[in-house]
Amino acid sequence: MKNNSKKSFVRTLSLKPPSLSDNTADVDRLVHSLKNEIKTDHLIMDFDMIQSLPHLIRQWDYQLDCILYRDGTRWGIAGIKGTDDPSPVCGIAVDLGTTRVVMQIVDLVSGQTLGQIAFDNPQIRIGPDILARIHHTDTDQGLNHLNRAIINGINENIEKLGRSCGIKPENIYLMTLAGNTAMTHLFLGLDPHWIIREPYIPVINRPGTIEAETLGVKINPHARIFTFPNIGSYFGGDLIAGILYSGMDNSDETAILVDVGTNAEVVLGNSQWLIACAGAAGPALEGGVTRMGMMAGPGVIDKVTIDPATRNLSIRTIENHDPKGICGSGLIDLAAQLFIAQMLDIRGQLLPSACGRRFKKKDGVGYFVVVDKNESATGEELTISQVDLDSLVRSKAAMYTILETITSTVGIQLDELETFYIAGTFGSFIDPKSAISIGMIPDLPLSCYDAIGNSSLGGAAMALTDSECQRKIDMIRDRITYIELNVNQELMNRFSAAKFLPHTDISRFPSVKI
Amino acid sequence: MKNNSKKSFVRTLSLKPPSLSDNTADVDRLVHSLKNEIKTDHLIMDFDMIQSLPHLIRQWDYQLDCILYRDGTRWGIAGIKGTDDPSPVCGIAVDLGTTRVVMQIVDLVSGQTLGQIAFDNPQIRIGPDILARIHHTDTDQGLNHLNRAIINGINENIEKLGRSCGIKPENIYLMTLAGNTAMTHLFLGLDPHWIIREPYIPVINRPGTIEAETLGVKINPHARIFTFPNIGSYFGGDLIAGILYSGMDNSDETAILVDVGTNAEVVLGNSQWLIACAGAAGPALEGGVTRMGMMAGPGVIDKVTIDPATRNLSIRTIENHDPKGICGSGLIDLAAQLFIAQMLDIRGQLLPSACGRRFKKKDGVGYFVVVDKNESATGEELTISQVDLDSLVRSKAAMYTILETITSTVGIQLDELETFYIAGTFGSFIDPKSAISIGMIPDLPLSCYDAIGNSSLGGAAMALTDSECQRKIDMIRDRITYIELNVNQELMNRFSAAKFLPHTDISRFPSVKI
Repeated sequence: MKNNSKKSFVRTLSLKPPSLSDNTADVDRLVHSLKNEIKTDHLIMDFDMIQSLPHLIRQWDYQLDCILYRDGTRWGIAGIKGTDDPSPVCGIAVDLGTTRVVMQIVDLVSGQTLGQIAFDNPQIRIGPDILARIHHTDTDQGLNHLNRAIINGINENIEKLGRSCGIKPENIYLMTLAGNTAMTHLFLGLDPHWIIREPYIPVINRPGTIEAETLGVKINPHARIFTFPNIGSYFGGDLIAGILYSGMDNSDETAILVDVGTNAEVVLGNSQWLIACAGAAGPALEGGVTRMGMMAGPGVIDKVTIDPATRNLSIRTIENHDPKGICGSGLIDLAAQLFIAQMLDIRGQLLPSACGRRFKKKDGVGYFVVVDKNESATGEELTISQVDLDSLVRSKAAMYTILETITSTVGIQLDELETFYIAGTFGSFIDPKSAISIGMIPDLPLSCYDAIGNSSLGGAAMALTDSECQRKIDMIRDRITYIELNVNQELMNRFSAAKFLPHTDISRFPSVKI
Repeated sequence: MKNNSKKSFVRTLSLKPPSLSDNTADVDRLVHSLKNEIKTDHLIMDFDMIQSLPHLIRQWDYQLDCILYRDGTRWGIAGIKGTDDPSPVCGIAVDLGTTRVVMQIVDLVSGQTLGQIAFDNPQIRIGPDILARIHHTDTDQGLNHLNRAIINGINENIEKLGRSCGIKPENIYLMTLAGNTAMTHLFLGLDPHWIIREPYIPVINRPGTIEAETLGVKINPHARIFTFPNIGSYFGGDLIAGILYSGMDNSDETAILVDVGTNAEVVLGNSQWLIACAGAAGPALEGGVTRMGMMAGPGVIDKVTIDPATRNLSIRTIENHDPKGICGSGLIDLAAQLFIAQMLDIRGQLLPSACGRRFKKKDGVGYFVVVDKNESATGEELTISQVDLDSLVRSKAAMYTILETITSTVGIQLDELETFYIAGTFGSFIDPKSAISIGMIPDLPLSCYDAIGNSSLGGAAMALTDSECQRKIDMIRDRITYIELNVNQELMNRFSAAKFLPHTDISRFPSVKI
């Protein structure tokens, strides 16, 4: 079934064979027909494809499928095949995370997702975080090591993913990739040295569309890779992909998008304007915050419930394995439930009497036993200390402060927001009700919250099947105003007020009943 | 001295260094500035140039020269260098002939020609003419052999030419190449199989601009090669370059351009329209027509004078060497002088009595002794036979018939032509007065005749220093109407009438006095 939709990158052509009265050359015949089909003046074709065209076009009796790619206003041909050839025509979307990489194979004709794979960014072995990796590029062959690590990781996983869904690497004609500015640079083999040094200049803002072969990505030899543009060193293509995926740039209603990763990145706007900022809110919310803090995975506590009457605690673990730790969303649940059950006061302090036997002290610091050692997978108590809770309170206060600051910048109240998109793995697991209870996010009707999952991957996948996306991506990029959060007295006042559960101004959280 | 003329491919830029208030990426900073400079929306940069830019741009303190190239409406960067770098920035123009290749190195900044070289097309060793070479491509590796032969020949001669004028291959950033459709295909490694087979379809009409590296041409690694477009299998880029060089497409006055090579190719037109045709007129006019017929070269007779009173014959040879043969222009001179001295009748028959001792017969065929054996370089008589003269008369009649036919197609009289461009080596040596005397070309005032030399090379060189040329070339290509000469009764009547010296209708040649 062919899909000659006006948005598709795959077009079926039936060329008029040449004759004495129409002696247009083979290449020009094809290009002319395609230019008409996609309404463009610009269309390029790889030279080796030109060399092989005359034989193929006659073999195919002038009936062929063209796989197109786009690079800004330019179009090009990423592949041609006879209409009788049943081999699949696919693209691959990549969310290039600092820690984790997720890829999705999409059928370019039907638009269907055929499979997905996730793997740790192999660069972790070289440097755990962005800063360490950028410093590594200053060593001999450092940039090359990091570049080869991610390219090889992607190649291996394309093959693995392809095997699982019956797609060969040569069936993949397009790749779209979204990542933060530093990761994108390392993927492209561009020196990120100046990204972290004043005045923080990337090598490139709009990498556009590059030959897969040039980058060493092993898919179809004519395939092209579109890399989402960045706005600067601290606002990457992953967030632009997220905005695209949310669709907030299409709506007249003002929405907010929050992506919590290492940083909490926040975008506010609508079809008329977009403003964005980033703040350090994240580290406290994912793995590393507590001794037992960890990423979501089997055995990790992702939900906690406390009966306010009996103060009995029940937990849910991922895949129902024996509990071995707690992830960000579980931690927020725990704090919210402790607060509602009045086991935590409004400053986030554990109340020993209310916590009863679950409250203990070690080296003068109070802690709360979430799981007894005889019920845990590790044979150790799973606990959360007052220090961890203080850290969570600072994080949630930072998040609320960012939200309040960005909205106030354009004179909007938080409760005027129509939609609140929460992106990222964190967003998929978080219970908005709990996050509202501790005052991390505003007290909007729950229906306003939309957990859109991996929006970076989602945006990348959109760009595989909709040839208009690049124009939209450019518009999003050009429309965003990036604001720096100035740490001034006003911000500090907001932060201080937000360091209470749910907030000093309790009237902002009418739904939170204790 | 820098030349930032609006037509130049070389532009000097002074970029504003980045700052906290202007954090545009390195590549985008350069591209944005260049887009402004050349007023374009489309500008591409090779990926390895992108990778090296951040270091270079800082080393050059944001002051750099950019060497641009054009591909239709797109622009790209063929080279960047610091403004302090004194190395030359050159281009090379190539006239790719079936027999002979001529190349010229041009300074892209000053526009000056630095040197020129000519060499035999090395493909001659594989096949002497177009047809033989195209048949050779049907053999195993045949196309590859022919392609390597011309590419290697060009590479060797670039180095040789470069050495003679102090230019290294890496100083050459642009190449422009004009040739007939078959030669262009062999240069590009494109299969010319269908060019000589009905319905005569080239692989490509507009090869556009291709990486030198892709084609194996050893100049600067980022250099680009622009190949002049063709209109079909029998109307090549060499002729389009010739039209460009003549400037006839710019003038309101109607002019005619004749390029005599293997074929006589004729273009008629002005700034409003252009029509073209080709006819087999040439073979009789260059090497091979007579036993002694040969290309121009030392010792070759290029000028003949006969005193009509005494019938004494005097010759001029190239470089004043002892005579060893006669070239096309010498042959035309000879025939014209014989005719004016009444030693040849109006049918082109030698008159034995008038020729005297110079007339001899062998095997029943009369011939004329041009040089006695004791005066020739070969020790043999240099002669021209009645068969040779008959052949010349047919050739000149064919030429005149083509000229008459193409002008009558648009209702123009030959004597209305303002300018008559004669291109090619042949055109450089021919004496228009002699050609008029035998009725080969019309009896226009001698000032109308303009021998423009190697117009294919001239057009190619123009495209190196004027970035507007590609637009003009496209316009020329799109504006030309190619007419097939139909061999009908009218054409045969014209041909018959033209087979007399100068013509049956003597009133057409008032200047020819016998």
